[in-house]
Amino acid sequence: MGLTVVTSDGRIIRTGGRARKSSAGYDLTRVFIGAEGTLGVITEIQLRLYGVPEAISAAVCQFPDLASAVNAVIVAMQSGIPMARIELLDDVQMEASIRYSKLEGFAIKPTLFFEFHGSEAGVREQSAAMESISDEFGGSAFQWATRPEERTRLWKARHDAYYAALALKPGMTAFATDACVPISRLADCILETKADVEKSGLVAPILGHVGDGNFHLVVLFDPAESGARDRAEALAQAVSMRAIAMGGTCTGEHGIGWHKLDLLAQEHGEAVDLMRAIKRALDPHNIMNPGKTVPL
Amino acid sequence: MGLTVVTSDGRIIRTGGRARKSSAGYDLTRVFIGAEGTLGVITEIQLRLYGVPEAISAAVCQFPDLASAVNAVIVAMQSGIPMARIELLDDVQMEASIRYSKLEGFAIKPTLFFEFHGSEAGVREQSAAMESISDEFGGSAFQWATRPEERTRLWKARHDAYYAALALKPGMTAFATDACVPISRLADCILETKADVEKSGLVAPILGHVGDGNFHLVVLFDPAESGARDRAEALAQAVSMRAIAMGGTCTGEHGIGWHKLDLLAQEHGEAVDLMRAIKRALDPHNIMNPGKTVPL
Repeated sequence: MGLTVVTSDGRIIRTGGRARKSSAGYDLTRVFIGAEGTLGVITEIQLRLYGVPEAISAAVCQFPDLASAVNAVIVAMQSGIPMARIELLDDVQMEASIRYSKLEGFAIKPTLFFEFHGSEAGVREQSAAMESISDEFGGSAFQWATRPEERTRLWKARHDAYYAALALKPGMTAFATDACVPISRLADCILETKADVEKSGLVAPILGHVGDGNFHLVVLFDPAESGARDRAEALAQAVSMRAIAMGGTCTGEHGIGWHKLDLLAQEHGEAVDLMRAIKRALDPHNIMNPGKTVPL
Repeated sequence: MGLTVVTSDGRIIRTGGRARKSSAGYDLTRVFIGAEGTLGVITEIQLRLYGVPEAISAAVCQFPDLASAVNAVIVAMQSGIPMARIELLDDVQMEASIRYSKLEGFAIKPTLFFEFHGSEAGVREQSAAMESISDEFGGSAFQWATRPEERTRLWKARHDAYYAALALKPGMTAFATDACVPISRLADCILETKADVEKSGLVAPILGHVGDGNFHLVVLFDPAESGARDRAEALAQAVSMRAIAMGGTCTGEHGIGWHKLDLLAQEHGEAVDLMRAIKRALDPHNIMNPGKTVPL
């Protein structure tokens, strides 16, 4: 809701406020959020807190193939079922997570992790609706994680996905890329990405917050192998270009950094000039995280 | 989600995109939204659409006094009951709306209009929770508007509130101001404002989107009467200063325009310098809605 920011000329300013909405001047909070420190250093953040829901329930559903899992998500989102979380793990990521996080009772198949929040009745209603959609797409019976410790185990496995992926190929290194597309294009984008991965010969699990149309690709490669990094980079580049072509973004969460500077112009065209003008206005000496986010 | 904007140098740029989230560069969409045309002219907007909820129900509840009505809202918001709309109309506004919009069966008392969205079970649950909270604060039994034409009549009365207020005093003119405060301060802010109105001798109904902590004051005055405009302005100024002092904003929705330019610095302090830098960067010749929003 608000920030404390140290500006490039050394001032400490506050943005936003505690009201739920404001139309007093420019929305500086959103200028600084996601600017990756290139406009100022955020030193404090004011967040709105939400109460713990009356009921929380998590479930796991496994699918015969990747298309079925993603299409179930698309139908659920398009039906407006409110879901607190929907995480996709493809077969490769499931293999990694089963091994690394000792997840028992699951098959090496494309899998969705769900979490439902609300009242007792609301959670029952949402999960019944999701179960019926999953069933249409050949999903397994839901495996429920209702007790907090079961849920924690599940989400810990999800959080450890990167380390689980690394552990698939000891000695290899990895980088992650992410993309986000309109929900209607999510199946196309993920399936074409999966085909790219298979063609590349690389090991690269797909996982992500698919309820937002957002997914991640963890690309493993052997840094000692000639050309391996280039192949990994080419794979990540293809994901970005595809997401942009589908009306999406080359990064839903990770940001531009310096690795995606060229992609920013691909995605935003001349609008990058306006970003550059804002960068120059707020950091005229280019001392705030120089070289990142916006090409000068 | 995205905009088409004509910039001050005559270029046509696109911001945002169709993905639900992006971290590709600065959030230009939010730079232009609420800038009141001072940074560029928005010519197209891309919105996310939401499906019509399975169930919609509206209800009216009347309270013995203003404090009870506002405190019921505070408890409801703090309990996390999801409500699509909560509108407050104080006794003066109810009198105006009963007359102007021919609302039958209501008393001249502080009143809340509610709307609940969701599944059938969700709407039942939300409205039962709200009814029980209202009851604790001495609210009347809910009068339901379940059929679409009843709901339309109710919300039309709400939308016509400004004209209803004007009709209270034929020949007078009015201006509206709005403020938004943290929910926890809403009762203090509205009750102190009501006391100010009573002390001023002016007719000034209070109404608003109180679920957000946002309310409006419509100040009626006779432009021919010496000093009347000044008294009206002083009343509005007091509302703004109080909202800022309570950690809120001098405008939740209406914007700064030129009328609240001085208040912007009261609310945002040195952060206004950053707004000024952005204005100068994107509109160096000060040709986009000059003189508004940010004092140069």
